Amino acid sequence: MKEQFYAYIQNLQDTITSKLEEVDGKARFREDIWERAEGGGGRTRVIENGEVFEKGGVNISAVHGELPELLRKQFGVAHGNFFACGLSLVIHPKSPFVPTVHANWRYFEMYNGDGEIVTQWFGGGQDLTPYYLFDEDAVHFHSVCKKACDAHNNEFYTKFKKTCDEYFWNSHRDEARGVGGLFFDYLKETEEFSIQNRFDFVAEVGNSFLNSYVPIVEKRKKITYTQEHKDWQEVRRGRYVEFNLVHDRGTLFGLKTNGRIESILMSLPPVVQWKYDYHPSEGSEEERLTKILKEPKDWV
Amino acid sequence: MKEQFYAYIQNLQDTITSKLEEVDGKARFREDIWERAEGGGGRTRVIENGEVFEKGGVNISAVHGELPELLRKQFGVAHGNFFACGLSLVIHPKSPFVPTVHANWRYFEMYNGDGEIVTQWFGGGQDLTPYYLFDEDAVHFHSVCKKACDAHNNEFYTKFKKTCDEYFWNSHRDEARGVGGLFFDYLKETEEFSIQNRFDFVAEVGNSFLNSYVPIVEKRKKITYTQEHKDWQEVRRGRYVEFNLVHDRGTLFGLKTNGRIESILMSLPPVVQWKYDYHPSEGSEEERLTKILKEPKDWV
Repeated sequence: MKEQFYAYIQNLQDTITSKLEEVDGKARFREDIWERAEGGGGRTRVIENGEVFEKGGVNISAVHGELPELLRKQFGVAHGNFFACGLSLVIHPKSPFVPTVHANWRYFEMYNGDGEIVTQWFGGGQDLTPYYLFDEDAVHFHSVCKKACDAHNNEFYTKFKKTCDEYFWNSHRDEARGVGGLFFDYLKETEEFSIQNRFDFVAEVGNSFLNSYVPIVEKRKKITYTQEHKDWQEVRRGRYVEFNLVHDRGTLFGLKTNGRIESILMSLPPVVQWKYDYHPSEGSEEERLTKILKEPKDWV
Repeated sequence: MKEQFYAYIQNLQDTITSKLEEVDGKARFREDIWERAEGGGGRTRVIENGEVFEKGGVNISAVHGELPELLRKQFGVAHGNFFACGLSLVIHPKSPFVPTVHANWRYFEMYNGDGEIVTQWFGGGQDLTPYYLFDEDAVHFHSVCKKACDAHNNEFYTKFKKTCDEYFWNSHRDEARGVGGLFFDYLKETEEFSIQNRFDFVAEVGNSFLNSYVPIVEKRKKITYTQEHKDWQEVRRGRYVEFNLVHDRGTLFGLKTNGRIESILMSLPPVVQWKYDYHPSEGSEEERLTKILKEPKDWV
């Protein structure tokens, strides 16, 4: 399974970066191959200063070796070896009318002393963070997520949509990071689902990504915007930073286990503002967004 | 002691904000009085878009009530009441040639069931974060810190300077946040030092603050700078955000115990950039700074 999934995300990285370059029309992804001292490495691809994308990364990695201390504690084991691979992407568009998107699909294996798999699972999901909300964009994004889920199990969408709203919650602000999407973790083999079924599901979700996001970009990328719109985007990006550095388990795990810092922090937006106690004016589009983020909505 | 210290920081807030307004010459501090549902409150003063100061806050607060769960865990007690007050300031100047400064001086009391003090201590310190380093500024800042320490004990400066270097360490970047200063915590009453001695020391440090910082501001505020200098300042401010949101105990404590978010996050810079894998060119002033931050230096 690890070979199968790693081959899958290598291909998916190619597909996604090619398409995003085509959409951008100007900037190209820069590639960095890196190695992890303790085992494994990754292929980081970052785009900056594009026509459409101000900054973004589409990264894959496959790492292995002894379980880092943090994971040993989390799993309650004294020692163990692991393998983990995944694709992570975050795209910050230039235009405040094009939403930021994040996605991650990953696979994990843990071994006993004889090198046999003792546990294995998939995790991941994708979520959308608009600065100006076109309801139909949220509906489109969620519809694509739902369709991918429904092809495998009727309960997946409702469940993983809810988990996503709970996970991407900026608790210190009492608001969601964005309008959500899917989030799932510890998808293990069960009587109902073989590990191959799990792979098929995650691959279906991964394959649906471009279709969930690119139509939104195409629809909004040409809208004219002012400095005020841009300021609002940069202020909201501050909340994105707060979530990623204060709450996101993946980011904190990477920072505290000697991950490749620049690959992890590619998720941070290019330009960010923090204004003291800033509130958009009553009845504005900006205020409408903040109200919607206070209470996760059913989009489909 | 709590009345004595709270009166002290109220006065100190007035002294510091008046002087900084005078130095800025254009912007004024905006004041927000807030209350904490569980007991106490604060007086937040924030300056924005000044001639010299792009954003800054000089806040005091005095809170009391039942110990928050996080502190009960930390102190290993099942329950207890507390009182805490302090002054916190962070100043982000507009010019990349004027360093950012942070300071905090605080006092804490914990009580038994009869309302008697079971433990009490002072904590705090101040530290300097330059974007372009003039060695003489670091020397000046540390000299003022040392003089305040030496007036009370010959060992304080060496000890609290080292603690400062250790505390303001961006471990995931393997570099210091800035050029340090002082950091001390749990200054309790001992045979050698009465609690009044401790107060006198903290007040000496607090009283020395303007003298440690303002001469640097005055010396550097008129230097002409380019967009490239400003970009570098904004990139380095990213490291400031990373420290405050990932490592700073005070910030995380505030965010996780329902503190007043806008007062806590006034510490975040007004405009910040994250560029992927950015390295200043060899032999540049920017590179010299990053090298110095890798290994804390003795400035006096």
